[in-house]
Amino acid sequence: MSNVKAYAAKAATKDLEPFDIERRKPTAEDVEIEILYCGVCHSDIHTVKNDWKNAKYPSVPGHEIIGRVTKTGENATNFKEGQLVGVGCMVDSCQDCSACAENLEQYCEKGATFTYNSTDKHLGGHTFGGYSEKVVVDKKFVLNIPENLDVKAVAPLLCAGITTWSPLQQWNVKKGDKVGVIGLGGLGHMGVKLANAMGAHVVMITTSPSKAKDAMELGAHEILISKDQDQMAKHKNSFDFLLNTIPVGHDVNPYIGLLKRDATMVLVGAIEPLDPIHGGGLIAQRKRLAGSLIGGIKETQEMLDFCGKHNIVSDVEMIDIQKINHAYDRVIKSDVKYRFVIDMKSLKNN
Amino acid sequence: MSNVKAYAAKAATKDLEPFDIERRKPTAEDVEIEILYCGVCHSDIHTVKNDWKNAKYPSVPGHEIIGRVTKTGENATNFKEGQLVGVGCMVDSCQDCSACAENLEQYCEKGATFTYNSTDKHLGGHTFGGYSEKVVVDKKFVLNIPENLDVKAVAPLLCAGITTWSPLQQWNVKKGDKVGVIGLGGLGHMGVKLANAMGAHVVMITTSPSKAKDAMELGAHEILISKDQDQMAKHKNSFDFLLNTIPVGHDVNPYIGLLKRDATMVLVGAIEPLDPIHGGGLIAQRKRLAGSLIGGIKETQEMLDFCGKHNIVSDVEMIDIQKINHAYDRVIKSDVKYRFVIDMKSLKNN
Repeated sequence: MSNVKAYAAKAATKDLEPFDIERRKPTAEDVEIEILYCGVCHSDIHTVKNDWKNAKYPSVPGHEIIGRVTKTGENATNFKEGQLVGVGCMVDSCQDCSACAENLEQYCEKGATFTYNSTDKHLGGHTFGGYSEKVVVDKKFVLNIPENLDVKAVAPLLCAGITTWSPLQQWNVKKGDKVGVIGLGGLGHMGVKLANAMGAHVVMITTSPSKAKDAMELGAHEILISKDQDQMAKHKNSFDFLLNTIPVGHDVNPYIGLLKRDATMVLVGAIEPLDPIHGGGLIAQRKRLAGSLIGGIKETQEMLDFCGKHNIVSDVEMIDIQKINHAYDRVIKSDVKYRFVIDMKSLKNN
Repeated sequence: MSNVKAYAAKAATKDLEPFDIERRKPTAEDVEIEILYCGVCHSDIHTVKNDWKNAKYPSVPGHEIIGRVTKTGENATNFKEGQLVGVGCMVDSCQDCSACAENLEQYCEKGATFTYNSTDKHLGGHTFGGYSEKVVVDKKFVLNIPENLDVKAVAPLLCAGITTWSPLQQWNVKKGDKVGVIGLGGLGHMGVKLANAMGAHVVMITTSPSKAKDAMELGAHEILISKDQDQMAKHKNSFDFLLNTIPVGHDVNPYIGLLKRDATMVLVGAIEPLDPIHGGGLIAQRKRLAGSLIGGIKETQEMLDFCGKHNIVSDVEMIDIQKINHAYDRVIKSDVKYRFVIDMKSLKNN
């Protein structure tokens, strides 16, 4: 074991502060990674603040990790020192259940080991995330990062990217489909970029007319202001697919009204109670509401390769780790376009 | 045009009374049918009482019609006088939109013509249903009835049967699947019979332990009492498909918990607001909630042929038309096993 520097919350709603954590020495299956960049996801804030009532302290958040390999276990032969790699929301799973067999480790029937706040099988206690100098991860959960991309802007692909990619793939979004992306934040801006690159006709659905220009620059072909009843009526029963990135409970009925017969809206953000859904809205044209949780490791690699080919990265604002509490305040106010990424070099300043 | 006897509600919440209605002379495309039996659907009551705020009076309900052909138009060559036929929830549609092209007339983009309470394209006014001596229907909306079945018990297949058959087919329920049927009423008892005949392992999910014996006799292999937390926990994440026949708004969250990853619950009854759904229940294991409305004419014929082959009919209680108001009271109290069917001969007594 070795101690490394990190930033951690020691109790709910407290600010994050410098902290020393233990990282294991790599086993034969492991890859040790020096962390270069780590994206700031809203889940980090939910955990620090214990919004989901399951936080373990001290908590080191961070699951959008980009780094370079510093050591490899003898069986981790796919990786070599100096290689650019990524780690997303998971660092392990049972590798034995039907979900793992289908490369859907996020639905592991015994529970995936998430990058932070999960039981640590090696050291006991719980896992620590990417706001840290180093991370040691089983080779199966280490991703190859296309070298042609702006590396620091790749970090958010490991959560925001795969979370939007996975449902677009699962529901077979294809060239010419009319796809609505609901909500323009960290997830939504990736949804627009990815759906555009897949050849869909992308409609940004937002409450804020002020976001129209940005959405078009990101790749939306059309804007639908969801508060405008006339616009909503015009688009009724017309969407092949809706990706709903709103991160809180809300009224989904108007969006269900936008779906074509047999079309699906997938929730990826709202891990909260929704307003009452009218059964008739699903029954009348045989519509579907579904959920989706991040994505498996295989599809994460496919997404990264796709992004490499199509030159897609996140729009990011870089910060030093010392500014993390301020960044959290701004995320909560949706005052970021569209993802903060921590330059982990700044940890050396502590 | 010709006048025929019928039973009609003349205003919301009033009792049904004898009434004379007009039926058109058959056009070249039409089949004229003498009605033998008509099932009593809960929708009839919703319409008579104007629960859905769209009722037109006088209202002649009834969309589970069995009868014999008395006349055929010159182009209705598939039917001949004396033939046993059925008419379900629809009597016409545009035959021109993508839904009609896919044999899903119930989702007709211009609006299907329902058997009652829809605009009548021929006579003006609105359509009158099956609580009547005769009906005249476009040949495309007339079904062949297998002669080997108990004819009076076939009537409810035209709505309760197809409403449960269609989602079981759409979602590809197959031999060995674990299928839950939620709610044991007119729809639920058909769901159990059909899913059983398809080879599924059928679990009756009900709040009432008193319904267990009946459900097993209908074809359920297992009973799950939804109020029993231990039983519900035992069945968590285990169902391949859930058919939810509850006819009112309710809490679907416990049922979503029963679905396997990627499995679907289809609502066929609750044309009302549901209690708030927790987004996390859909997201965590990528589950799906969908709706389904009756079924198209092609699949209705397929369902009838399947029922002929497997000797499936509804469990019915026969009544004379003069008892219709009393029957409605009993349907509202769920005091029927499982469908009232009116013997239309009794109309002659008025």
